[in-house]
Amino acid sequence: MGGRVNEDLIKERRKCTFDIKELTHIIDCGEENTIKRKQIDNYILNIKELWDDVPEEYLSHKERYENAIKKAFIVLKVLRQLHTGNIQITDHRTPTNVYSIQDGIFRNVNPLLIHIGLFWSTIAAQASTEQQAEWLQPDSSMIGTYVQTELGHGSFIRGIETTATYDSTTDEFILHTPRLSAYKWWPGGLGNTANACLVMAQLYINGTCHGLHIFLAQIRDFDTHKPLPGIKVGEIGPKMGFNTADNGFLGFDNHRIPRTNMLMKNVQVLRDGTYVKPKHDKLTYGSMLLTRVTLISDLAYQLSKAATIAVRYSAVRRQSPIKSNEPERQILDFVSQQHKLFITIASSHVYRVVGLWMWNSHKRVTADIHEGNMGQLPELHALACCLKAISSRDASALVEQCRLACGGHGYMMASNLPQIYAYTTAAVTYEGEYTVLLLQTARYLVKFWRLAAEHKPLPQNFAYFEDYIKKNFEQWRNSPEGIIEGFKAIVAGKTKAAYDTLQCNLRNGREFEEAWNMASVQLTNASEAYARSLLCEVFWKETVQLSTKVSKSLAIVLEQLAELYLMYWALEKHGDLLLYSTISRNDIEALQSRYEELLALIRPNAVGLVDAFDIRDEVLCSTLGAYDGRVYERMMEEASKSPLNEDVVNESFHKYIRPVTMKNKL
Amino acid sequence: MGGRVNEDLIKERRKCTFDIKELTHIIDCGEENTIKRKQIDNYILNIKELWDDVPEEYLSHKERYENAIKKAFIVLKVLRQLHTGNIQITDHRTPTNVYSIQDGIFRNVNPLLIHIGLFWSTIAAQASTEQQAEWLQPDSSMIGTYVQTELGHGSFIRGIETTATYDSTTDEFILHTPRLSAYKWWPGGLGNTANACLVMAQLYINGTCHGLHIFLAQIRDFDTHKPLPGIKVGEIGPKMGFNTADNGFLGFDNHRIPRTNMLMKNVQVLRDGTYVKPKHDKLTYGSMLLTRVTLISDLAYQLSKAATIAVRYSAVRRQSPIKSNEPERQILDFVSQQHKLFITIASSHVYRVVGLWMWNSHKRVTADIHEGNMGQLPELHALACCLKAISSRDASALVEQCRLACGGHGYMMASNLPQIYAYTTAAVTYEGEYTVLLLQTARYLVKFWRLAAEHKPLPQNFAYFEDYIKKNFEQWRNSPEGIIEGFKAIVAGKTKAAYDTLQCNLRNGREFEEAWNMASVQLTNASEAYARSLLCEVFWKETVQLSTKVSKSLAIVLEQLAELYLMYWALEKHGDLLLYSTISRNDIEALQSRYEELLALIRPNAVGLVDAFDIRDEVLCSTLGAYDGRVYERMMEEASKSPLNEDVVNESFHKYIRPVTMKNKL
Repeated sequence: MGGRVNEDLIKERRKCTFDIKELTHIIDCGEENTIKRKQIDNYILNIKELWDDVPEEYLSHKERYENAIKKAFIVLKVLRQLHTGNIQITDHRTPTNVYSIQDGIFRNVNPLLIHIGLFWSTIAAQASTEQQAEWLQPDSSMIGTYVQTELGHGSFIRGIETTATYDSTTDEFILHTPRLSAYKWWPGGLGNTANACLVMAQLYINGTCHGLHIFLAQIRDFDTHKPLPGIKVGEIGPKMGFNTADNGFLGFDNHRIPRTNMLMKNVQVLRDGTYVKPKHDKLTYGSMLLTRVTLISDLAYQLSKAATIAVRYSAVRRQSPIKSNEPERQILDFVSQQHKLFITIASSHVYRVVGLWMWNSHKRVTADIHEGNMGQLPELHALACCLKAISSRDASALVEQCRLACGGHGYMMASNLPQIYAYTTAAVTYEGEYTVLLLQTARYLVKFWRLAAEHKPLPQNFAYFEDYIKKNFEQWRNSPEGIIEGFKAIVAGKTKAAYDTLQCNLRNGREFEEAWNMASVQLTNASEAYARSLLCEVFWKETVQLSTKVSKSLAIVLEQLAELYLMYWALEKHGDLLLYSTISRNDIEALQSRYEELLALIRPNAVGLVDAFDIRDEVLCSTLGAYDGRVYERMMEEASKSPLNEDVVNESFHKYIRPVTMKNKL
Repeated sequence: MGGRVNEDLIKERRKCTFDIKELTHIIDCGEENTIKRKQIDNYILNIKELWDDVPEEYLSHKERYENAIKKAFIVLKVLRQLHTGNIQITDHRTPTNVYSIQDGIFRNVNPLLIHIGLFWSTIAAQASTEQQAEWLQPDSSMIGTYVQTELGHGSFIRGIETTATYDSTTDEFILHTPRLSAYKWWPGGLGNTANACLVMAQLYINGTCHGLHIFLAQIRDFDTHKPLPGIKVGEIGPKMGFNTADNGFLGFDNHRIPRTNMLMKNVQVLRDGTYVKPKHDKLTYGSMLLTRVTLISDLAYQLSKAATIAVRYSAVRRQSPIKSNEPERQILDFVSQQHKLFITIASSHVYRVVGLWMWNSHKRVTADIHEGNMGQLPELHALACCLKAISSRDASALVEQCRLACGGHGYMMASNLPQIYAYTTAAVTYEGEYTVLLLQTARYLVKFWRLAAEHKPLPQNFAYFEDYIKKNFEQWRNSPEGIIEGFKAIVAGKTKAAYDTLQCNLRNGREFEEAWNMASVQLTNASEAYARSLLCEVFWKETVQLSTKVSKSLAIVLEQLAELYLMYWALEKHGDLLLYSTISRNDIEALQSRYEELLALIRPNAVGLVDAFDIRDEVLCSTLGAYDGRVYERMMEEASKSPLNEDVVNESFHKYIRPVTMKNKL
């Protein structure tokens, strides 16, 4: 669709005060990644079979799967070519946008996501050297997935019911699904595609349960693809999103696998049934932790898509004159619209920066673990839990805010905003449910509050708990640093409140877990506050540091975004600041003014900022957000693809309508 | 699907302390409506063609339309039978659930919704007596819709570009779409179904524009259903929800209609081109106002569906022992879960009560208007604007909260929660966009604040503006009445803040509308606070009044729900209460304790409360929410309907998978 660029967008781009490419390179984690991304884009854009003529939203559930699986195997081949046969594409998980073109191909998710991203990497991480030598073959026939949750068991994984019972007479494990609630349910690619899987099951040896372990099980014949005897497998049906992935269910009827199919790097079952314990019982949680960390960066990318669509549309869309004698104004000129959109741009940068910071922390902690030092793991776990929870929740809310900011047109699938929302909101639940995760972090906070309350030594990063107890309040400052201090005071205040409630419940004779449950609303509040203080502090510090390394004109803009984020949340949380810091009413009014000033300062760069995300039209897949801003032309063109517009008169007319409307005229 | 009821649900039902039927009758607006509803349900449940074998989520976009239209014409026939030929089914709009079975038939929306609900009623309200005699025929061949918004024009309806130019030589209007952005876009049923429509267009006579008027235009041949010459009509493509309705686009190429096709009850164009003005220019906005009012009741119903699903599921679902030596607990026992769900139950009652209160106000004001008294219209308009905005926003957020409270399973379409969300969130935008409506109400608030600031007399319902200015603060009371006073103080405080900003902008030389725009974030905040204070006050007062008329055991429960709602929002808005009322930190802590007490008090009645909504399984359409609680059985049964489970091996295997996985084995 060639054609001139919308005039308003041309004007907006002229206003931009910074070098867009400079920012793009930062977002991509370096110019070399920008170059690599564009190479991959160009390569894949030329493969015609990957690009649909009819948008997938018109297809039936079954057609959608078949279309996706066709493309998935083309992509698999391409990725293998690009990696010259290395089937463990580990750099897939580093926080760059190098492979973002896949978002455009699948409009949602690659049905082989788990096969590519988790199946092989779990084998590499948890299988023994011999197992790896056997399984990690470039010409493997396995299409795998990772099978953990059950119909009746999600976040509380200890509740999993599937059993793997060792039979020493045959040297086999018997995989079994004891009841309906134990059916595996949800794994991506399991329904129709995978022929093998890693199964999480309770290990039983001689009547003793040794807890959860991972087993490799073939489930379909490699040659015919028919389910093996004792395997009941199928697809679970349509979902809010992820409909290009055949999420599946799986039941075992005393299905036997060789003993050597248990993943045995850290733990072993010997031929005689001897169980050899792992050195450290947290080693198995590594891949879940990594997923939570990489999720933060992925959410940054989803936010950048939503922001690009909503900002460009708001520059093109005109509605209501602001002054009555003027033409209708760009809706981007409405301050209420800026209030909805600029926080989304800023938040995308927050999650990019914090995601990278967490990625680096994870790398450091993993290196330590390999040297036998587990000391930093609890902190990383606590950070990952609350940051995963809050970033997924915030990102979902912001994507939806962008969608609503596009009015009715944002409700159309052709805007791509509903799909981005469906994709983003799934992250609130998967890989650790929101509230469950916040309560995990709360345990960590309460631990340190107890130390503080008992005047015991605290690590440096919780020194502010002691300040709070000693009422060492600094005078409020209406500055980024002041807001960060204020957010820490909120963490201390909310942790104290939750802790006091907990203690009170205990004094009233409740057992600990019951007392904990009764305080859980306050405990999650404390965790949320902790995540917010981390997001603010890391983003601000990293931005200040980055600003010294970039051009002056870009530094100004980056600091505006960081300040906007802090001001926005200070205003959102003004009630907590009033409760736990020394902020005054006048301070809040001043923050409100400064916030509105920042909106005005960012306004001229709004389009430049989303252009810098550099998301190509084929990835954005949005009638509202394309680079050229030809919104209405694209909307009409998309509508023309509707199969309901193929026939001038739909056959329903003759079957159902005419007999009613013309009954007296026949 | 027969079968025993889940044990946990049986126990929950035994715990219920009030008479469920008594509450059901209140919710239905009287026992007679409950009876009528059940009669209609039973009648319609017996029509087999209305009930799908394959859930519609498996169908393609085109199949979905064809399936819906088949059912729509059966329903139309049934409704005509039930109303013995009266094609204006006006009682369709009264706030009862009598026709709720339709939600079950269409899973979403009847494609004839606009035909039934708006097309005929607009003719009845705005056409002249002669026109009505001609058009309102029981055997009319017209299938109509209401055509207002355009590709480029939504909430700002004055911007509409479609023209209707009077040609006195032929006594016709020429309907014309001058450019792409003027294409009509969105009307339900327009794409493939309607053969006639009411078109909103700018009336031109002899080169003078008289503004927007409504015209009846035939667009398709009644007999062949082919679009008439000069008509370009089609379907706009898939949306987030409402996919059973063929929303459409429409363009006119100098399409001629008789002069007598303009709706002429309040306004006329004579044969010679003389324009006869309406007596009152607000008469045309009546139907939009009524739609906003009835929407509030509809949102109450959507919330009751979401609450029913999430509460029943939470009673059945077990996860994590609270004490480590116990079995896994019902998730309804987790206080964090109660915090998510009970506010949804309470909010459904809020919107039911406030919807009814608005419905009665609307009736009163309409009666006044017919007697020539327009005095109450501005107030009703201001109330309807902010209540529509806030109730749709709150309801969407709460439906989503219920969905997320069901964990991963809430993400499945078979839970019906994604569809309820998609339906509910549409209401944030249609019939007046959220922010636009809040800014309408803000004008009303600012008007009264100006009077207060100038010490001019105020109407009784704004007397608290004067109290606020005079600093007549009552001492804070931690009671429902105290909270209501507190919320009024917030309205006053926020209106003052927005007004002061506005004045400051004006003093700095801004023109009024520019100054208004700069203050718009604060103005919408004031409007939101106003809506919240209305919701709290009306709900509390109506509940107290109702409590005197119902059994003691029910009165206790209703007052708990009302108190919960007030406490919840007082805690959510504690920052504003700290700024604008005399609440203290200790008061907030006491509110938090009382709120947690209320959760515990409501807990035993939770299932009884959602049972009282009395939504039958065929309407709820949810694997998670059915009356018998057989969640996992239903989920597996639904999955078995997936067309992807029909074949043991999907043909994609042979086409795409095998060539890759077996390439070295062939």
